[in-house]
Formats: sequence, C-alpha cells, structure tokens
Amino acid sequence: MKNLEQLLRETDNTVDMLRNSQIGAYIYPVVPNEFTSWRDEQWAWRNTAVLFDQTHHMAELMIDGPDALKLVSHLGINSFANFPVNRAKQFVPTSYSGHVIGDVILFHLAQNQLLIVGRVPTINWVEFHGKTGGYNVQMERDDRSPARPGPKAVFRKRYRYQVQGPNAWKILEKVNGGPIPDVKFFTMDAINIGGRKVRCLRHGMSGAPGLEVWGPYEEAEEIRDAIFEAGKEFGMRLCGSRAYATNTLESGWIPSPLPAVYTDERMKPYREYLPAVGYEGLGGSIGGSFLSKDIEDYYLTPYELGYGPFVKFDHDFVGREALEKIAGEPHRKKVTFAWNADDVAKVFRSFFEPGIENYKYIDVPNANYASANYDMVLNGSKTVGFSMFAGYSYNERSYLSLGIVDPDIQIGDVLTLIWGEENGGTKKTTVEPHKQTEIRVKVSPAPYSREVRENYADSWRTRQPAE
Amino acid sequence: MKNLEQLLRETDNTVDMLRNSQIGAYIYPVVPNEFTSWRDEQWAWRNTAVLFDQTHHMAELMIDGPDALKLVSHLGINSFANFPVNRAKQFVPTSYSGHVIGDVILFHLAQNQLLIVGRVPTINWVEFHGKTGGYNVQMERDDRSPARPGPKAVFRKRYRYQVQGPNAWKILEKVNGGPIPDVKFFTMDAINIGGRKVRCLRHGMSGAPGLEVWGPYEEAEEIRDAIFEAGKEFGMRLCGSRAYATNTLESGWIPSPLPAVYTDERMKPYREYLPAVGYEGLGGSIGGSFLSKDIEDYYLTPYELGYGPFVKFDHDFVGREALEKIAGEPHRKKVTFAWNADDVAKVFRSFFEPGIENYKYIDVPNANYASANYDMVLNGSKTVGFSMFAGYSYNERSYLSLGIVDPDIQIGDVLTLIWGEENGGTKKTTVEPHKQTEIRVKVSPAPYSREVRENYADSWRTRQPAE
Repeated sequence: MKNLEQLLRETDNTVDMLRNSQIGAYIYPVVPNEFTSWRDEQWAWRNTAVLFDQTHHMAELMIDGPDALKLVSHLGINSFANFPVNRAKQFVPTSYSGHVIGDVILFHLAQNQLLIVGRVPTINWVEFHGKTGGYNVQMERDDRSPARPGPKAVFRKRYRYQVQGPNAWKILEKVNGGPIPDVKFFTMDAINIGGRKVRCLRHGMSGAPGLEVWGPYEEAEEIRDAIFEAGKEFGMRLCGSRAYATNTLESGWIPSPLPAVYTDERMKPYREYLPAVGYEGLGGSIGGSFLSKDIEDYYLTPYELGYGPFVKFDHDFVGREALEKIAGEPHRKKVTFAWNADDVAKVFRSFFEPGIENYKYIDVPNANYASANYDMVLNGSKTVGFSMFAGYSYNERSYLSLGIVDPDIQIGDVLTLIWGEENGGTKKTTVEPHKQTEIRVKVSPAPYSREVRENYADSWRTRQPAE
Repeated sequence: MKNLEQLLRETDNTVDMLRNSQIGAYIYPVVPNEFTSWRDEQWAWRNTAVLFDQTHHMAELMIDGPDALKLVSHLGINSFANFPVNRAKQFVPTSYSGHVIGDVILFHLAQNQLLIVGRVPTINWVEFHGKTGGYNVQMERDDRSPARPGPKAVFRKRYRYQVQGPNAWKILEKVNGGPIPDVKFFTMDAINIGGRKVRCLRHGMSGAPGLEVWGPYEEAEEIRDAIFEAGKEFGMRLCGSRAYATNTLESGWIPSPLPAVYTDERMKPYREYLPAVGYEGLGGSIGGSFLSKDIEDYYLTPYELGYGPFVKFDHDFVGREALEKIAGEPHRKKVTFAWNADDVAKVFRSFFEPGIENYKYIDVPNANYASANYDMVLNGSKTVGFSMFAGYSYNERSYLSLGIVDPDIQIGDVLTLIWGEENGGTKKTTVEPHKQTEIRVKVSPAPYSREVRENYADSWRTRQPAE
C-alpha cells in the first residue's frame, strides 16, 4: 500500500494536491442533521440545555502500560508534573519544528491507562510513536465512525455525550438523584444514570457547568434516553450535526489546523508509516483563499493557536528545541472574526439571480469546505492572518470564524477576509466555480464575548486600523 | 391506542394543531447529506448524470390478488382501461369530496400484482380500503426507513435507484452491455447490471431519458456500485439528501399537499383507523403563512395540482361524483414561482446582524419546514395562491417554489409571497421566532423552463399584473 511519503514524491506540489482534493463533502457521521432545528438547538445550549452526541466523529486511542505517561510526555507540549488519575487535559503534540500536529483530549483513566480522543492526525502521531519508540505500552485504536455508513450498523467501543447549557447541572443532579460534587474543570468523577455508575468529566460552556460522560457502547441508547427524559422539563434538546459543529464558534476552539507533517527529514519515517489514502493525504484537503506554494506556510505553532500557556519546558518533548527558540518572540494570536452582515448577504445574493457570476457559496450554519480551511485576512493589502473555521451563530446573530492574526492587530480592528479561491476556484468538489470577493470582518475575542455583541453596531463604525 | 378521530375531537382546531406540531425537522433518511456537494450534485443531473438513492424515503405497498386492480380502480381518479402488466402510472386517489389524498407511483408488476410507492398518506388510504373493502387481496407494507436510525442497521424489502441526466442512457447501455430498447415513458423492462437481470422503469428528467431500477434489498450495494463504477467516466455523481429533495423544483411535482382526511363524516371510519401519532396526526405538520381556521381550505383538487388529465370518468371511484360537478369549472393551476433575488437576500441579511428582528429562516437548498407547506401568495391584497414546496436550484441560479394560483393569473405575473407566520411564528420547532415579510415571486411554468430563465432579467421589469 502506498504511503504518504511516496504520494508526496509523485506530486508536483503538496499544497496543490491538498487544495484540489477529491475527498468530497465533510460529513459529521451517524448523528442526524437536526432534531428540532439547528436554530433551536443552538439556542438551547445558550438558554436551556443540550445533549451533544460525540460518540461518532472522533477517533480514540486507549494506551495501557507502564510507559503510557512517558509516551505522551515525550510528544506533548503540556506539563505532566501534576497529572494524577482522574484528570484530563487538552494535549497538544508538535512536530520537530515546533508546529502543531493537532490537539486531543487526554484522559488519565487509571494508573498506567490513558485515553486520547479527537481528530485522526494526533491519534496517528501518538500511535506511531507508541509502536516505534520502544515504549512498554499496549494500544487499542477505535476509529471514527464511517462518514457514509448508509443503512449499515455502526459500532464503537464507547459512547460519549456532553450535557451543556445553563440547565445542565440541574438535569445532571436530577439524573444523579442528588447533588454532584462540583469538582474542578477537566477533573473526572462518576455519577448515577439510570442505575448505572457512569464516569464523567467536569466540563462547561459559556460559564455554565456541564459534564461529559462515557461508557460501553452497548449502553449508549439507555444512557442517552435517561438523560434526555430527565432534561425535557428543563427544555433540553438533542443536538444534530448541523448545530453541533458550530458550538466551537462560540467557545473559541480551532478544530482544524493542518498537521505539520509534510516536510522535514525528521518527519520522513512518519510519512512512510502513514498511508497515502489517509487524512494527511488523499483523505484530507485544504480550503480557502490563502495560497502559498510552500506547505510550511500553513503550519502553526501552539502559541498562535492559543496553546501558549500549555507549553512547559519542564520536560523533554518533540519540538521543544524549536519552541524554546521562539518562546519569547511576539506570536500571532487566536481571535474570532465577526463577519459584516452586508458582505455575507452579498455572497448569498450572488446565487439567487441567473446570469451573474456567483461568489463562493457560504454554507449555513457551518462552512466546512475542507479539512483545513485557510482564508486570507488582509489589513489593506497586507496579509495579517487566516480565517480557519467559519459558521453561523443564531445566538450571536452573526456569521463568525475563528483564526489567527499578527501580533499588532487589535480587538475591534476591521480587516478584509478574501472569500473564495483564485482564478475561478480549485477542483475540490465542495467548491463550485466562483469569483473571489471581500468580506469585512471585525476582530473580536476568542471566545466571542457578550461585550463584543453589545457594542456591535458602534464598533463597525468606530474601529478601523490604519493601513 | 388513540386514533386520529379521537385526537381531532380533543383538539380545539385541527389547523392550529398541525401548524404547532412538535414533530421537528424533516429528515430524508439514511442517505448522507452530500457526496461531492449539493451544488455539484444538482449540476450533475443537468449536465452529466446522477444516481438517486430512493430506497429509504418512501413507503411501499405490495398488493397481490385477483382484486388488486379493482381496489386501485375504486380509489384512483386514473383510468385503468389501458394498464397492462409492465406499465406504471402516477396514481392519485381523492377523498369523497374529490380532494387529493396524495399521489404515488403504481407499478403493474405482474398479473394480479401491483406495487405502490410514495408518501405515507396514500399508502395508508389504499391499505385501509384493501383491509376493509371486502377485496380479495393480500397486502405487504414496507414502511419508510426511520428518520433517525442512529447507528442501527436499516432494512427495506427493495432498493430503488434512478439514473438520470444527459449521460444516463450511455451509462445504462454500458452497464447493460448493449443497447436498451427505448420503451415508452413509464413502461417497464429489464436490463443487465453486473450479471443480474434487473427490472426497470423508463423515466426521464429535463428531456433526457433515464431509468428507475429496483430489486431485492440484499443486492442494493452491489447494484449501486456497478452503476456508479460504470458512470464515473461520464461524470456521474451520487446524489445526497440535500440535493435530492430539490430535483422536483426543476421537474414540477408538488410532493406535499395536505391529505384531505380531517373532515367529512364519510371519512370518519378512516380517521378511526388511522393512529393519532401518524403522518396525518401528531407525525405531520402544516407550515407557512396561509392561515385559515378551516382545514378544508388547505385541501386541493386533482385539477389544481396538475392532475386534471388523469381524471377519467370511465370508472367508478371515490370522489367521482364531486369531481364531475367541478370538472367543467375553471380551476386553480400549478405553477413555479421564481423568487426575487433581492428579497431572498434580504431574508438572509436579517440573520447576520445582532439586535435586529429576523425574518423566517430560508434553508438552502430546501426549505422543508413542515410536512405540508402553504405560503400565501397575493396579488395586491388578494390571496391568489399558495407556495407549497420551496428550494434553491443551482442550475437555475434561482430560489424557486411550486404552488398553485387562481385561473386568471398569468405566466410572467409578479405576485407577493408572504414569508413567515403571523404574530411572531407558531410553536413548530422548525420555525424560530420571526417577523413576517414579503417576497416578490414571478409566476413561471411548471416544470420551470429554459425560456423563462433566459428572459429572467427583462421579465421582472415588464410584467406586473394589475391589482
């Protein structure tokens, strides 16, 4: 079977290959589009409560053995100095050059037992090192559910739900049959659900406490029904796949940086291990207006993605040397872009009249046109950032995206997002022929804050950066 | 178990009940949202070829026995004078008052064997008469696939695919391994697919010939793969659920009239037979701006839906007497409404700015906010029609809907569609709180024609009806 290294050697340019991927539309698997409606479901996580079904869209890797912590410590920017059993953390590995591979949630389930949950690139990277690095670990991988299972049954090892929203805690206490100890964020405990003891992780959204729960897949339906039944009187909604993907726009996590694996001789053994057809190869894609022939221009550091506070030089890890060199420098920073209503409407307008040229379609509520999206953001004619994950928040009544900007860009600055690809568009099937255009975006905090919303109208007029 | 008649008696007003249904979002089951992208898939059926997977969203009723034809002849407006084996027809039953129950495709599979395929209301109606009318028939029903099966396997009795588009015939001949006799529209035959003899129905779209094929469910994947493999060189696309539902906007079939079952003492035994939780009761809904307290104002005759040519008084059938009375009168007529680009964009615009009141969300590419949609269409202040099924055609670059208008309304007239519900909106979860607004629509032929498109810009300016 062809590996990624071979594929890249056969390919003129890695960027061109990924920008013209034929992988097709991204599908959030198994979970239906909508239950009540995506507006209602978005509304619920801000105003009542919601049950997210996270069972199917992520891969998992269970790591057992005396070297489990040693393995992740070797790969993560994170400190493991204080990581007892029953804690979790957002685990971020980087390449040798200090660029992000991805990020996942790492659960310390038991002595010598770790579980990582998230997108495939990080799972691949950890599994590779677990297999080849001489660690005393056993690993069991559970891949993401198939995107298009059709009428076939889908099996996973575990279910995974989140209960979120202002009424989440009331619902969970009702399900539990009594108060739940309010342990710290990202600390694990257990609660009672329908006669079962279920492990949980303290989580939260928009300041309101919530829980993530998981357990054997055979109990998935029983546990979901028990929670949802209890939640009905509190206005709880099941969340469909259209709304789900947009919750990150309010919470400020960028799900989709390009994994920094395509260059660097030190990464070559890994590329020879990865299959050509995988996420990093023919199974992934780059979207958006940003175009550089150098794939490294798409790489990002942990500092740029908001993971600076996680970087701890208290241990040796892949990428440490590179990160130490840049630790003290100014970094690009993560922001939310609030999109100008007139400009977004202009793009829609272009589709509704025959005979005129359309801009690139903006999907609602989530414009997920590639595995990794990089739209250019300009200040005047200078590229000052990327927009990387775009969608609509009914709660904010704004089209929003998450991305990064240069250090000197300030909250409130109005910049220009270049929407669409050059020369009529790439060959991606998710992108119809179109004309590039400009969308004004206002630089806003990530997570997107209430304050910003309340000053929306004014700040469009008042804040314009000098070009 | 409660029946529909009991439910209606407990309910103050049938219209209110259906307009405030809590059934949630309509899901086209099992088929994924998108393969390549809904724009690309719509484009394919106009320009190359497409494979529609119709296995899951319709119910089927197999009718065996010497009285099979007698049963459908008793219920249908259609003539059965010339309906040999290997023919199919669009079968339309009406209530005693001559109002449409629904429409389905009726296949004459063999001597004394009929198969009907379509929405549930018609299947229910035929099954009821088959069970209670003293007919010598056996019936086997195969219900539509569950809307939200989650990770569970889904089983049907048969697969059902359509191959459509300008390259469809080339692909089918390649699959068949030789020429296919070009039998008449809605005539059945058989072709070879991957070593199997498969029954087929001559079909077509936009003037290009196509086929519908079906067979045992166990062979679904094998047959689909064989067709798709052959179709690749001809640019064939698999069609996802987002694009699928919109193909009717170009072909001019209204899928969703309200079944005329809620009133009339003669229909009472049927209401007592129907469950309260079914499509006609808690499992259905009415959407749109048209509001009458009298549910009968939502009923439509076959003439209004474009089925006038099917009405044949050469046999006795339920509704004949009522239809004979109105046969010679002027009827409302089926049309396509082309929506004004500025007005559609205005609705989108209202969602993209916080602090302003939004109009009712228009989904793209299909605004399927209820089982039966009735938006008021006005000429000045007078209601002159309904818009009944709305969506976007990338091929036409227009938001379109199908509906009916008064006899005196002409092609080219510009009317006003009232978009959204009164007083902030009903309690349907598919409809967020909103303000009503107006959308200009241009009356166009159904099916929507090339000519209309080509004169689009001019005709907005030139044709305005007198108020």
